Amino acid sequence: MNYQQLTALIKKKRSFLCVGLDTDTDKIPQHLRSFDDPVFEFNRLIIDATIDFAVAYKPNMAFYESEGIKGWKSLEKTILYLNQFKDAVFTIADAKRGDIGNTSERYSKAFLSEPPAGFGFDAITVAPYMGSDSVKPFLKYPDKWVILLALTSNPGAFDFQTQKLQNGQTIFETVIQQSLEWGTTENMMYVVGATKAEMLSSIRAIIPDHFLLIPGIGAQGGSLEEVCKFGMNDNCGLLVNSSRGIIYASGQTDFAIKAREEARILQNQMEHELARHGII
Amino acid sequence: MNYQQLTALIKKKRSFLCVGLDTDTDKIPQHLRSFDDPVFEFNRLIIDATIDFAVAYKPNMAFYESEGIKGWKSLEKTILYLNQFKDAVFTIADAKRGDIGNTSERYSKAFLSEPPAGFGFDAITVAPYMGSDSVKPFLKYPDKWVILLALTSNPGAFDFQTQKLQNGQTIFETVIQQSLEWGTTENMMYVVGATKAEMLSSIRAIIPDHFLLIPGIGAQGGSLEEVCKFGMNDNCGLLVNSSRGIIYASGQTDFAIKAREEARILQNQMEHELARHGII
Repeated sequence: MNYQQLTALIKKKRSFLCVGLDTDTDKIPQHLRSFDDPVFEFNRLIIDATIDFAVAYKPNMAFYESEGIKGWKSLEKTILYLNQFKDAVFTIADAKRGDIGNTSERYSKAFLSEPPAGFGFDAITVAPYMGSDSVKPFLKYPDKWVILLALTSNPGAFDFQTQKLQNGQTIFETVIQQSLEWGTTENMMYVVGATKAEMLSSIRAIIPDHFLLIPGIGAQGGSLEEVCKFGMNDNCGLLVNSSRGIIYASGQTDFAIKAREEARILQNQMEHELARHGII
Repeated sequence: MNYQQLTALIKKKRSFLCVGLDTDTDKIPQHLRSFDDPVFEFNRLIIDATIDFAVAYKPNMAFYESEGIKGWKSLEKTILYLNQFKDAVFTIADAKRGDIGNTSERYSKAFLSEPPAGFGFDAITVAPYMGSDSVKPFLKYPDKWVILLALTSNPGAFDFQTQKLQNGQTIFETVIQQSLEWGTTENMMYVVGATKAEMLSSIRAIIPDHFLLIPGIGAQGGSLEEVCKFGMNDNCGLLVNSSRGIIYASGQTDFAIKAREEARILQNQMEHELARHGII
């Protein structure tokens, strides 16, 4: 999916909501556990319940890998299910990969190549620590995206990312600046945690037009209004993720209904913000 | 495996060789391709051929993930095979993971928990960009190790890792310094690329006693002698990795014999270095 298509999808759905599929086997409602693949069944019902209000889905690889081959199968079924809605959803492999060139090439094949060679995700989150040749292999796929970690939403973000270099910039600003030589607004987004919304201003000064993926709304405490105030651009330029707040809104048989309600609440707020910024 | 056991293993085998299992389906000798699982068959024969000369094995996750569920099965068989030699080999999941706390917990379960819950690796490579809470969950497993990326062996290492912070240190030195608050010599090692052997001196000034995992010998051009000159400590304190130079020494039916020869050559050089430094 390219920039124009994603922007059109946001305007059509009046939403820039990304639903994080951090599906934890311990938190799946009891009544689904008799299914052959409870994780996939849970994901399918969450997707069906929220697809009217969400533009993107973001399975978190750790939750699948930690279940071994069974988990890998659940992930495969989930992405194949999502791939059916190709024009209606943007898919993100939250993998935070990054390694020397020949290895990043392998990861890019795994996540971005179309099935059966790979999963066929639209995008993958990538860690910048190893520099250009660890990121570039992911940028070779047309209409696919790297979502580079810039300023993350966790406490450890302040250990390194916000430290200042001798050039006067923070590490995360330097990561963004340098990466402009690797990709474009058409194939690169950035992870910026909602818990530091005010820092979005300095980021928008460097990258006014790029999409930003914003985690940390909800369970991690970020405010949507603040994010939009400092981070929204003329095309929206935001994907705001909520994981636990939606998928675990209820742990009972009504989990999908409750997830839909939570997604609708966020979509309503997003529609309001899109209107306020003159985008719809 | 703990520090003392690993050190004893190095002295016993007179080697600090780690064999990287970056097993590429395109490079597996033709005659193995009729096997049900050519990747596992290849790994098994490589392990059998080199185990006298290697103290560690390091499957590179990307090469397995890029083959989907089939690859995940090959990886599982490989680690179960390696786990049989518990006291004779140290196993490293080259995964370069790192994410917010609850997600890193999942990755740690996947790679460090004993089977069937996880793969039961002795160690996992971890990226430091997201800071303390992204690393600490991996440090909760007794006698298991985090191998933190410090200074990697690829060209992109110079994009960020070697940049200087306002405190006068490089980013990689700061990563090492900060991480000393998270782990100890008993559960933390560092990746330091052999292509920058002279930088090992400044690293040893900060961490004289920690183990270092050194990639970049062979295909990437690093020199073993230089690495030992600047990086070896009184207990050796090194694991030196070779991947392509060993496992693809021949692409023919004699691949295992040639792999054994290459491993033996490196072991001989390592024995020489261990003796020269008075360790054996």
